[in-house]
Amino acid sequence: MSYKLNKKLVNLVPYDPITGHYDIRLDANESCFNLNDELKSKIAKSISQIDFNRYPDCLAKAPIKAFSELYNVPEELISAGNGSDELISIIEGCFFEAGDTIVNVSYDFSMYEFYAQLYEVNVETYQKEADLTIDPDKLIAFCKEKKAKGLIFSNPCNPTSLGLDRTAVRKIIESLEDVLVILDEAYMDFWDQSILSEVDKYSNLIILKTCSKAIGLAAVRFGFAVSSRTITNAIRAAKSPYNNDTVAQTIVSDILSEKQYLAECCDTIIRNTKKLYKDILSINEKYSCFEKIFEPCTNFVFIVTDKYEEIYKYMLDNSIAIRKFKGAIRITAGTEMENYRLIEVLDSYFKK
Amino acid sequence: MSYKLNKKLVNLVPYDPITGHYDIRLDANESCFNLNDELKSKIAKSISQIDFNRYPDCLAKAPIKAFSELYNVPEELISAGNGSDELISIIEGCFFEAGDTIVNVSYDFSMYEFYAQLYEVNVETYQKEADLTIDPDKLIAFCKEKKAKGLIFSNPCNPTSLGLDRTAVRKIIESLEDVLVILDEAYMDFWDQSILSEVDKYSNLIILKTCSKAIGLAAVRFGFAVSSRTITNAIRAAKSPYNNDTVAQTIVSDILSEKQYLAECCDTIIRNTKKLYKDILSINEKYSCFEKIFEPCTNFVFIVTDKYEEIYKYMLDNSIAIRKFKGAIRITAGTEMENYRLIEVLDSYFKK
Repeated sequence: MSYKLNKKLVNLVPYDPITGHYDIRLDANESCFNLNDELKSKIAKSISQIDFNRYPDCLAKAPIKAFSELYNVPEELISAGNGSDELISIIEGCFFEAGDTIVNVSYDFSMYEFYAQLYEVNVETYQKEADLTIDPDKLIAFCKEKKAKGLIFSNPCNPTSLGLDRTAVRKIIESLEDVLVILDEAYMDFWDQSILSEVDKYSNLIILKTCSKAIGLAAVRFGFAVSSRTITNAIRAAKSPYNNDTVAQTIVSDILSEKQYLAECCDTIIRNTKKLYKDILSINEKYSCFEKIFEPCTNFVFIVTDKYEEIYKYMLDNSIAIRKFKGAIRITAGTEMENYRLIEVLDSYFKK
Repeated sequence: MSYKLNKKLVNLVPYDPITGHYDIRLDANESCFNLNDELKSKIAKSISQIDFNRYPDCLAKAPIKAFSELYNVPEELISAGNGSDELISIIEGCFFEAGDTIVNVSYDFSMYEFYAQLYEVNVETYQKEADLTIDPDKLIAFCKEKKAKGLIFSNPCNPTSLGLDRTAVRKIIESLEDVLVILDEAYMDFWDQSILSEVDKYSNLIILKTCSKAIGLAAVRFGFAVSSRTITNAIRAAKSPYNNDTVAQTIVSDILSEKQYLAECCDTIIRNTKKLYKDILSINEKYSCFEKIFEPCTNFVFIVTDKYEEIYKYMLDNSIAIRKFKGAIRITAGTEMENYRLIEVLDSYFKK
């Protein structure tokens, strides 16, 4: 008898991001701003001081302190991971046991289900309303019906770009007090309904934050979990001791302390997203070509269209990468120039 | 009813490395060589080219290519992780199911058991012989008796510093053909019994390599798994898509391509370890103070002594960090000067 992969792995399909070179990347909801030369110099100086042969600080104290100051959350409620991805993986793998049920919602970030399956956690999916909003009462009832031990969703939502206001979010958390609610606020820097400041009120809440979106450090892989002291201690105990490398810790500390720079980037991205949304509405007025365009509270626009496949391909042919879903496309807001070009190509597609 | 941590987490004790400042760090088996200014300039130049706002390459192609060229292993048999730690966590969490049994050995690296427990994988521990060697036949019989689906051990072993020659390792792998053998060759750069070049012969073998020891990049967190194409594809599918950040990928690619530099560092570390071992033997000849000193094929010396607690504290008081175990101490070989100082302080301890 020879070695065989188990059933979890044998048919596992890896995450499949767009690869290859495209002039304009509007597919991954990244910030459109690379670090400027001044900030690159700042981090270069810090990096030159690193003892590369020594293990990192296990508790990532410097980036946690910088995050604490930026978002005004106590340090003892913060844990750090190698991207939110690692935190999702740790939370789904360790805070639940094989056979436990967690609830996700659809549409939402695909990796929530991916990690749960790897760790034999059962996933029940709540289907959103036809307009892609969440009805809090229905979601609460669904979690109770499924005897869920956990609930995970993004707010604002990737990929729909829609948000749930904090009154609704509070209601969900308070109505499910024995359920661990994992609230991914990856895109909340672009909206104003965060409950980060309330995290200590809840014993059943983990809020995830990332440096890959508004902070503009997707290359560096850094995420934070904010939760009660009890949960924070458990995450710190369950994670790999040296999960955040010293270089990433250094860069994140340096950049999170640049409050004004970050606020300016964020404001510009919000402005660019609004403009992009308006321009897409104009395209739709001109050609009546889309089923639905959602008003975003994120840095991307979500469009329901049965031409998702054709538009996606046409964009790639014009060296613009966007993201397609079954029946929809998602377009990240880029720089003014990138968005201008996107609209130009979109117009030319429908003019054909 | 309010939210409660599950039984896996409620009593979980986090990994507890030595923290605080000590002049000489001989506790974590790190390389004693930080990057020199020339190499720091090289990586600084590469880092300045990074698009920090863009996600990393999912497949870490550049570091995998550099590893492939350094160790002469085909790229398609290599996967990369955020340190070997992440790879151990992925392998134990995904290649086994809750309730499966894996075998580890004692003494060995403590994290093998840590991750298995988190993912509800049962761990059965094979006790080494009194002289801390492994009897391959007994280990094989133990795995069969326990119906193990996996076997994990380090070779050469951390913390004992002892190695199993490749004939014995081959016998274990070949005798357990339906068992996944995870062979951690973290310290094999300091010895000559690697079976890395044979990995493709075995469908049940994963060899782990790290950049934290001989390569001298513990700060950067980078590990590699080398295995059959089938297993490699499964690891690549199960890992987080963006597990290796761009900065780490850049640094690792740059440094792994420095063959001569790496060979020189490794030679010096081996020389320093031999000298340290000899000097510790001399201390023992002088004071008859240790139960056993093991001849290392690693970059550290393992000493059985009932004075482990006192020696450990005395060293810390002299600003030297070493590692203690119940009944033993482990001393990483440092630079010539660091080792000289270590021996001086050890001598002063017994002279008292």
